[in-house]
Amino acid sequence: MKRNVRVMKFGGTSVGDAQCIERSAEIIARAAQSSPVVAVVSAMGGVTNRLIEAAQRAASGEEAMACEMIASLRTQHETALQALVADPAERSATGAEIERICAHAMNLCRGTALLRELTPRTLAAISSTGELLSARLMAATLRRLGLKAQAVDATELIITDDQYEQAEPLMEETREASRRRLFALLDDGTTPVVTGFIGATATGVLTTLGRGGSDYSATILGAALDAAEIIIWTDVDGVMTADPRLVPEARTLDEISYAEAAELAYFGAKVLHPKTLRPITEAGIPVWIRNSFAPDRRGTKITSAGHRARNGVKAITAIGDVSLITVGGRGIVGAPEAVAKTFAATASARANVLLISQASSQNDICFVVPSKEAGKTLEALRRAFAPDIQHHQVEHITVDHEVAIVAAVGEGMRGTLGIAGRIFSALGREGINIIAIAQGSSEYNISFVVEASAMKKAVATIHKEFGLESAS
Amino acid sequence: MKRNVRVMKFGGTSVGDAQCIERSAEIIARAAQSSPVVAVVSAMGGVTNRLIEAAQRAASGEEAMACEMIASLRTQHETALQALVADPAERSATGAEIERICAHAMNLCRGTALLRELTPRTLAAISSTGELLSARLMAATLRRLGLKAQAVDATELIITDDQYEQAEPLMEETREASRRRLFALLDDGTTPVVTGFIGATATGVLTTLGRGGSDYSATILGAALDAAEIIIWTDVDGVMTADPRLVPEARTLDEISYAEAAELAYFGAKVLHPKTLRPITEAGIPVWIRNSFAPDRRGTKITSAGHRARNGVKAITAIGDVSLITVGGRGIVGAPEAVAKTFAATASARANVLLISQASSQNDICFVVPSKEAGKTLEALRRAFAPDIQHHQVEHITVDHEVAIVAAVGEGMRGTLGIAGRIFSALGREGINIIAIAQGSSEYNISFVVEASAMKKAVATIHKEFGLESAS
Amino acid sequence: MKRNVRVMKFGGTSVGDAQCIERSAEIIARAAQSSPVVAVVSAMGGVTNRLIEAAQRAASGEEAMACEMIASLRTQHETALQALVADPAERSATGAEIERICAHAMNLCRGTALLRELTPRTLAAISSTGELLSARLMAATLRRLGLKAQAVDATELIITDDQYEQAEPLMEETREASRRRLFALLDDGTTPVVTGFIGATATGVLTTLGRGGSDYSATILGAALDAAEIIIWTDVDGVMTADPRLVPEARTLDEISYAEAAELAYFGAKVLHPKTLRPITEAGIPVWIRNSFAPDRRGTKITSAGHRARNGVKAITAIGDVSLITVGGRGIVGAPEAVAKTFAATASARANVLLISQASSQNDICFVVPSKEAGKTLEALRRAFAPDIQHHQVEHITVDHEVAIVAAVGEGMRGTLGIAGRIFSALGREGINIIAIAQGSSEYNISFVVEASAMKKAVATIHKEFGLESAS
Amino acid sequence: MKRNVRVMKFGGTSVGDAQCIERSAEIIARAAQSSPVVAVVSAMGGVTNRLIEAAQRAASGEEAMACEMIASLRTQHETALQALVADPAERSATGAEIERICAHAMNLCRGTALLRELTPRTLAAISSTGELLSARLMAATLRRLGLKAQAVDATELIITDDQYEQAEPLMEETREASRRRLFALLDDGTTPVVTGFIGATATGVLTTLGRGGSDYSATILGAALDAAEIIIWTDVDGVMTADPRLVPEARTLDEISYAEAAELAYFGAKVLHPKTLRPITEAGIPVWIRNSFAPDRRGTKITSAGHRARNGVKAITAIGDVSLITVGGRGIVGAPEAVAKTFAATASARANVLLISQASSQNDICFVVPSKEAGKTLEALRRAFAPDIQHHQVEHITVDHEVAIVAAVGEGMRGTLGIAGRIFSALGREGINIIAIAQGSSEYNISFVVEASAMKKAVATIHKEFGLESAS
Repeated sequence: MKRNVRVMKFGGTSVGDAQCIERSAEIIARAAQSSPVVAVVSAMGGVTNRLIEAAQRAASGEEAMACEMIASLRTQHETALQALVADPAERSATGAEIERICAHAMNLCRGTALLRELTPRTLAAISSTGELLSARLMAATLRRLGLKAQAVDATELIITDDQYEQAEPLMEETREASRRRLFALLDDGTTPVVTGFIGATATGVLTTLGRGGSDYSATILGAALDAAEIIIWTDVDGVMTADPRLVPEARTLDEISYAEAAELAYFGAKVLHPKTLRPITEAGIPVWIRNSFAPDRRGTKITSAGHRARNGVKAITAIGDVSLITVGGRGIVGAPEAVAKTFAATASARANVLLISQASSQNDICFVVPSKEAGKTLEALRRAFAPDIQHHQVEHITVDHEVAIVAAVGEGMRGTLGIAGRIFSALGREGINIIAIAQGSSEYNISFVVEASAMKKAVATIHKEFGLESAS
Repeated sequence: MKRNVRVMKFGGTSVGDAQCIERSAEIIARAAQSSPVVAVVSAMGGVTNRLIEAAQRAASGEEAMACEMIASLRTQHETALQALVADPAERSATGAEIERICAHAMNLCRGTALLRELTPRTLAAISSTGELLSARLMAATLRRLGLKAQAVDATELIITDDQYEQAEPLMEETREASRRRLFALLDDGTTPVVTGFIGATATGVLTTLGRGGSDYSATILGAALDAAEIIIWTDVDGVMTADPRLVPEARTLDEISYAEAAELAYFGAKVLHPKTLRPITEAGIPVWIRNSFAPDRRGTKITSAGHRARNGVKAITAIGDVSLITVGGRGIVGAPEAVAKTFAATASARANVLLISQASSQNDICFVVPSKEAGKTLEALRRAFAPDIQHHQVEHITVDHEVAIVAAVGEGMRGTLGIAGRIFSALGREGINIIAIAQGSSEYNISFVVEASAMKKAVATIHKEFGLESAS
Repeated sequence: MKRNVRVMKFGGTSVGDAQCIERSAEIIARAAQSSPVVAVVSAMGGVTNRLIEAAQRAASGEEAMACEMIASLRTQHETALQALVADPAERSATGAEIERICAHAMNLCRGTALLRELTPRTLAAISSTGELLSARLMAATLRRLGLKAQAVDATELIITDDQYEQAEPLMEETREASRRRLFALLDDGTTPVVTGFIGATATGVLTTLGRGGSDYSATILGAALDAAEIIIWTDVDGVMTADPRLVPEARTLDEISYAEAAELAYFGAKVLHPKTLRPITEAGIPVWIRNSFAPDRRGTKITSAGHRARNGVKAITAIGDVSLITVGGRGIVGAPEAVAKTFAATASARANVLLISQASSQNDICFVVPSKEAGKTLEALRRAFAPDIQHHQVEHITVDHEVAIVAAVGEGMRGTLGIAGRIFSALGREGINIIAIAQGSSEYNISFVVEASAMKKAVATIHKEFGLESAS
Repeated sequence: MKRNVRVMKFGGTSVGDAQCIERSAEIIARAAQSSPVVAVVSAMGGVTNRLIEAAQRAASGEEAMACEMIASLRTQHETALQALVADPAERSATGAEIERICAHAMNLCRGTALLRELTPRTLAAISSTGELLSARLMAATLRRLGLKAQAVDATELIITDDQYEQAEPLMEETREASRRRLFALLDDGTTPVVTGFIGATATGVLTTLGRGGSDYSATILGAALDAAEIIIWTDVDGVMTADPRLVPEARTLDEISYAEAAELAYFGAKVLHPKTLRPITEAGIPVWIRNSFAPDRRGTKITSAGHRARNGVKAITAIGDVSLITVGGRGIVGAPEAVAKTFAATASARANVLLISQASSQNDICFVVPSKEAGKTLEALRRAFAPDIQHHQVEHITVDHEVAIVAAVGEGMRGTLGIAGRIFSALGREGINIIAIAQGSSEYNISFVVEASAMKKAVATIHKEFGLESAS
């Protein structure tokens, strides 16, 4: 039986206070009239960071301060509850829940303070308190709006490995547990409100899914339930043609492909962490990015195919704080090992290689890493090439700290001639020097390196060149 | 004492027959009037390949055929001797040398035929016969022209490791042996004529320096003798702006840098093997490429600095018969090991990675290898990524067989804005699709990948765009 | 300045109750009259195991039970205090200490119960409570006897690495800290009573030294202080010629060497863990094993030289519950890799190889491991040799589960002829079958393997053969 | 069809001169009357070493001397031919064969002299000349005696890998080739005379089977043909109870097992190289050692079961020129890696570990290697343990150069009580000091290490103790 379920995830700002919760609840209520909805909620904005701070203070012995911080969070949620729900029975029942959840968090802080040691497992447990609370508030609000709704802890649904702070789902087990539990509720006409960010090991120990975790919860559940679509309700109108801080004329895109979303996410558009798309790519479930503060706006739809841009370029992203490293020398000529050695060194340093460009005479290999990883990368390279440097096989390993990567993204660039020419001519006209280029064989990306100081101008120049400020 | 020595190397066409030898000898004689010359000679054109064939036939038991081939080479050299030298005593003495050298080669063929086994050591010895002979002819001709001249076997000068067919010089030992032997001759007013291509191990076993070996002999000796300059006499006017078969308007360049020469060589300009420049780079000894058939032409001078081109692009090269390999998949996202694993695999396959471009979301790594190495490279990659493919971490390892690399080369590209733009715009206008781009941080190279069928047009387009047909 | 310090360690039975503590305190007091004494005390017998149980119960949430167990330990120590000390001020001061130490342990149990997780660090902290308590009791008792005495926590003295439950001392740092702290006390005429079993990392986190830890504390401090001797006060008269459960006629030995002690310990005589002797071997500090319940008996002195036995054999030990594993086959003949492969497999299985005997035709390698490690060892061997088994290079990997190792130990066996003959003849006469023999080149050991059922008889036979029942 | 073939191998002394060949031929002729015989012949005594010398002289350019040596071998065989055969036609035909074989060897020497390089492949070809010749002589002699006989080169029968000087048979291919070729001859009533020592790769290049190779040829063919038995005709009466140079009373044994033969061979009894028994062990084909100079004596039969000695010990062997190496130190205690590291080092040094004994406290591992391998073994150990030595984990790696291994061998030692006791008591009585003992779990061996100077006395003592001088 195809159930036509929609998974709706509400981020921190969309459940930021009573008013936001109210607005989000209305979105759910309206949607639930037409087809079944599974809601996934983040913690109220800022709550998770405060929980982590409380845990750390507990570990350094500040038990009282830690408990006070939890108490303050309890008050915040109780206040929201007062604003959202008038019915005394509901208030009392949900209030008791809030009480219980906060008491547990306090106990964990107390235990941590007694032992002066914060284990990954305990940190995961404390930091997930916010989602436990917001799910209760949302469920109560939905009930007030007349829905049958129930908070469900994702520890019952999402089965993960035991990396407590960066857990990965075991999809088979998750699928089975989620369908059994959630379909029972849906079949009963109940709207489940699931805690985002959280999972549990097969033995029931709570885990967290890492940063971006609530989006991941939504796509994991979407895949597990064969959802019709997934809607990420956030505080922006969708994915934009560029970062509006860099390009004021930037515009929201109607539709992009999974691949484009991954490219954009990667280069800092910060809409969705790339891992988020993994669970739903195969099934081709569409994901919407929509604005819960302006629910009448269309948002951006992310699909397998995307929407083909008129001129091949759909958006521009940039990533600053990166460094260009060059390994070069006569001895590298034609040496199959030099490339292998270089990237064995970067791997051993756990450096994130963002862009590679090696060409021509093989005299030079250049690549880009985040600036904060440049030091350890250089060190690893110097260690790896020490004998070669001694024997003058390698003449230099240098780093250029003040660079940025800019990428033009769009499905179908391959088919459109002259895009590279337009990009680099426009940059040349504006006097922007290109330090390195790496266009892969991918159809949807041209990346290049410029001086950090030229990043903003480079993004704006290309945005304008391709007329991204007006709808395609 | 600074001796102001010039090392002059004459390639196979420059000693191709009696007339060529005569012409080359006159070049030496004229030069020797102003300052000491050390001549280095290749085998007469085609001789080395015939020697290798003789050796292989011997190994398969065709002793008579092998000896006949040697005999025919003997006749060829004796005929040239007759044409070059009239003096009976010289004829007789040099004729005896030719006789002796060919007899030795025949003996080696006989030995090989008897054992039906061709060892690397014996192959090196047989294949070096041509240089032994041409050095005698050249020395005799020089004597006829009135010089004191003497053939010197490089086995006495260039001390190498024991990779018989691809030996590398031991520079310390070579320097000592070369200076002792050659300075004694030069101080005596004698012009040494050294066999190119050849060296010997410290224990005296003959080795060969691999393809391009006579050029290498020249630069090794140039470095060992602290030569004032090295002149590679060949059959072209110098290094050209492009391959004239691709661009009829291509022009000879007056001066290029070592780095540019290495880039051009690498991408198939075929002037000098990159390793040739290694010995003289540090000392900054200039190398000339000149035409022994038109010795009054200037030729191309290769120096540390090169000559700065007006617009940053100095020459265009291209390399066909290459394949683009792409490794991609969701699981590669952010995996520091994927890059390391990819190039560990190419190294294990001993594949020559000519160009790498990896960018953006790290979903794809693409690189280019010679087409004949694509098969083993793919195999190595599939083996290396087998577990990842099984777990859907890697989705595809694909190969695009019909591509070509084109590179625009020139010192100082970095400083000149808009070069990338001009290149890619020009290509776009001509309807040439860019498959991949890899501009390194080097100042003198932009490389890109096009379909094989577009190679010629791409080279011509850029050549024209930068006006390389007219002197800069 | 040579201080002539004696380190005296009192094990669990020697501080088992008030009466034992009294007796031990008198031993210290008497000794302290002639030269400075540093006392090291274990926890009262059984206490450590109960602490570990309390910790484990806490981890499974039984907080009340855990606290009750700690409370009961508190009562036990308070009762002992009452019996040992009458002075109200001392009672009150030491009682407060006991109170404080137990409260801390309870807090750790509470924290553990709250988090439901028992970390190695917390387990170390809880399980060291017994030593903290017994040191206080002993110090109070010594003060009552008129000494200036003070309990000192070894966390201030023994600096270790951070393997919380099996820490190893950093001798340099330990030496410096111990001398500074303890010499100040001794110079002041105070007898320090140091907690055994415990150390701390350089950053002050408590660690424990593993099983046998209090003996180790004594030898570490003995080495750090350049002690004149170390006395391990225990509940037996010293090291015996054999386990009296196997040989009722077994006798205490007057003097043995470090090497003999290590051999005996290794084979289960259970007097001292071999690691205990490491710190003092180089300096040659003598260690006594004496009976605190019969302090007038001589005990066994362990020295560099030992005492040469009349006939070369000084003691017999045995180790049961071991298995003999044999790897054999035609393909092993002369294969240098087979031996390496065998023991690489045992190492990968972390198996403790107690005895190896490989001889003659190399057709077979046999070795002994503890029976509980036989399974994983077999598995590792079968995995390592799988290709060889397939190719019939290895024919069998078998295990004989019911065997025992018996070892005759004594310095100077090398010099005494016929010992092996006497041993094996005696066994033969008694009908005991020898499965394997491994006499090393060491002068002090002959080991052999017998069927488990013959172990007792083998030990008794050799004991009698060498007349070990009567003094040497 | 079971053919009841006997394979008879005649070693160098059994074909040492015309008279020996005659005698051996008669043995074959007589045997062939009752059942089919396949003869395998070695080169005439001393011939192989002279061929190797000729090859080496050729490589250093002494062509004439090398050819002279071959010529002298030709003369030797021609002389034997004259003595063995009178018939002119036979003389002429076989003489021509000898001529041809020697001419080929000379050609190989000439080729080697021309190239001054002796490859493993050529050395194998030259050194196998002796077997080619002796097979012709034997075949001619058999024909004179009235048999149909034919020399067969084993290059047609035994297919091997391509380790030219130490080839191993590929049994499947060998079985097929041997049966096809030899059964055709046997079915025709012809006695094949096969060259020992030789095989060929699948592509037909001649290989040699290494030392002991002709025995190996016999057992390979025996296995391939499912022979009824294999008879190794040599110059001794069989396998003896001990080396008669050590024990004049040593006696020939009637029957021993494969396992005993392997043990004895291994320890220098030098009857059969252990690898020789591999091909026939599975099928259980009996192998006889008999004296071709006294063919009426029984000889020793080697079978699966052997013959059970009265008292468990059947023979004594010894191996001198061995060294005992000891690795020891406090840090080795209980370290599973120490054993693995030790034998990884010996394997890397390609050292032949003859005996291992590690026992008791694991403070010491001792093992024995041939003295000529002790140096490299020590070096490898010191390199492997360098960090441990620095950290005082390993205190010593020592070597005792003047030792010998003695082994008492006999099936069924396990079942006989007191053998170890008798051995070591006897040695003790004679004042022989035991340095190490390693009795494996094997039933048929006790090995021990004594000082080299005590080796002879030790062997004699045990020989006498077990009454091996009189038949069992």
